[in-house]
Amino acid sequence: MEYIQSVKWEQDALVLLDQRLLPTTVEYVRLETVSEAWQAIKDLVVRGAPAIGMAAAYGLYLGIRDSKAETYAAFAQELDEQSAYLASARPTAVNLTWALKRMEKKAAEHSELPIAELKADLLQEALAIQESDEAACRQIGEFGADLFQAGMGVLTHCNAGGLATGKYGTALSPIYIAQERGVALKVFADETRPVLQGARLTAYELQAAGIDVTLICDNMAAMVMKNGWVDAVIVGADRIAANGDTANKIGTYGVALLAKAHNIPFYVAAPLSTIDPDTPDGSAIPIEERDEQEVTHGFGTRTAPEGVNVYNPAFDVTPHEYITAIITEKGIIRAPFASSIRELMV
Amino acid sequence: MEYIQSVKWEQDALVLLDQRLLPTTVEYVRLETVSEAWQAIKDLVVRGAPAIGMAAAYGLYLGIRDSKAETYAAFAQELDEQSAYLASARPTAVNLTWALKRMEKKAAEHSELPIAELKADLLQEALAIQESDEAACRQIGEFGADLFQAGMGVLTHCNAGGLATGKYGTALSPIYIAQERGVALKVFADETRPVLQGARLTAYELQAAGIDVTLICDNMAAMVMKNGWVDAVIVGADRIAANGDTANKIGTYGVALLAKAHNIPFYVAAPLSTIDPDTPDGSAIPIEERDEQEVTHGFGTRTAPEGVNVYNPAFDVTPHEYITAIITEKGIIRAPFASSIRELMV
Repeated sequence: MEYIQSVKWEQDALVLLDQRLLPTTVEYVRLETVSEAWQAIKDLVVRGAPAIGMAAAYGLYLGIRDSKAETYAAFAQELDEQSAYLASARPTAVNLTWALKRMEKKAAEHSELPIAELKADLLQEALAIQESDEAACRQIGEFGADLFQAGMGVLTHCNAGGLATGKYGTALSPIYIAQERGVALKVFADETRPVLQGARLTAYELQAAGIDVTLICDNMAAMVMKNGWVDAVIVGADRIAANGDTANKIGTYGVALLAKAHNIPFYVAAPLSTIDPDTPDGSAIPIEERDEQEVTHGFGTRTAPEGVNVYNPAFDVTPHEYITAIITEKGIIRAPFASSIRELMV
Repeated sequence: MEYIQSVKWEQDALVLLDQRLLPTTVEYVRLETVSEAWQAIKDLVVRGAPAIGMAAAYGLYLGIRDSKAETYAAFAQELDEQSAYLASARPTAVNLTWALKRMEKKAAEHSELPIAELKADLLQEALAIQESDEAACRQIGEFGADLFQAGMGVLTHCNAGGLATGKYGTALSPIYIAQERGVALKVFADETRPVLQGARLTAYELQAAGIDVTLICDNMAAMVMKNGWVDAVIVGADRIAANGDTANKIGTYGVALLAKAHNIPFYVAAPLSTIDPDTPDGSAIPIEERDEQEVTHGFGTRTAPEGVNVYNPAFDVTPHEYITAIITEKGIIRAPFASSIRELMV
């Protein structure tokens, strides 16, 4: 099976697969400064919560590797500034701040080291974040695959696959692992307007892996469910609150309501790094609104009248009561989510 | 208020506004043969159930105006052949066959007339179909506007406006009439993938009429409802079965489920010509599947991998239990729809 690596550290630079050009062009960009990393995160060169976290960790290293600081205090201040700068690129994805905090914590733990060694340690930490993300995705797949039997139809929204993470993805990992076990599933991929991550990325990577995938427009999901073709919905997450409320790509909440109306289980797959115990519930999750041109000029061509009002939230929140289970690298948790999340995070 | 006329009979030809080029280009095409009319219906130059019916009526006249038939029997056979041909252009829209049957009935009623006079009568009948559609749309608007108060948020899907019909539209007519009465509404227009009738047509015609309209992607409707911005959903219909089940643009069924989940009334607006008493329920409505390129190359650019499977139904069916009321030119009907439809149609 072909896995695509969208985030790499190569020859002292952060190398990102430019996901905006898929599926027609496969092109990697090489970033050597923190501002290049910030821009790439902002502009969706890299997207997918875990991949953003990895890119930010490498980006933070790029931001301090040429630091002239001679004391830990001065170095820590630079680290803090660069970290805040990177965090501003995408406000919703919690993995971004999670990865940055993990880097800062590493520095704080080794504050007694010479600055040069600290820098080397931070690069190691960024590599470790990527490695542990790959391991977590694999585990999510192992747990999640147990939920599926051969021939089942699975609907997914947006892209929470290998492109979004280390190797296997989150929502797609159970599908890949099922495939490895010889359990063939039939996947329906919502195209996911406005940026079409489902059409451009999910359909692309599943097809590359030899998995049966059918592309649909977002508004066809209800009919596909009514046709009896969907046995489970599985999606990723950008941030999960302490009570299980889940922010994910715009449209996820609607899919959850449709799944409920058709008695179809609705699964969220995410590593623990996506769970934010400091966010009490969905209402506390900031929702990023993006440029209206994403809606009015979807693909280069203007498809809406000049000057029309547009609402373009990038995410929505699915209340925990619509979530059947959350699949993590430590196991599958179910309602009541507040207590199961607390137990899992200790 | 500016109303756009998308179907006209001018200087012995059928003149259609090419709706595929909106909103960037306003261009009318002139059709002088039945096969040009067939192609225009097939290719969505004209769309919207009532507008398709009007175009088909004029198209049928184009198909027989040069007939060499000398007897009524020969003429009727030609009429029947051309009618079947036109009906094949779009299988779901019942107004298409309704208008064609009305033309054939007219001919049968005047079978004693000289063929030349019969032809002239058929042109008059096509013009009468357009006139009565305009009157029906106006009436739908008058009844429907009573449901709205100033400041209400109304969500609509696809385009059931003036472009789809004579003058006022069906779903949009109550919004126009409300505007005429000084009742300003805030409209949310689903962009309506794959062909973007909402972005290209609904946003365009409402904006032209000075109505407050906000464009959203289809998958944002659930969030807009959760935000508390929607007090009613109103959509058109391509065919309404005897029990109230309603076929309309793909995505309508999903919107109905979302409205139900948020306790928002869901209205269907349609002339009686859209109700087909010969279709017992939704399962008997044929659902047209369209070219997969509409999904994979939505905007001219390829946005999905080569060779991916695509499911592209043009319509879905909303079961009557999700419909709050059907707004017709004879009044507003509510459940139980089977009996209220029977009473209305007599």
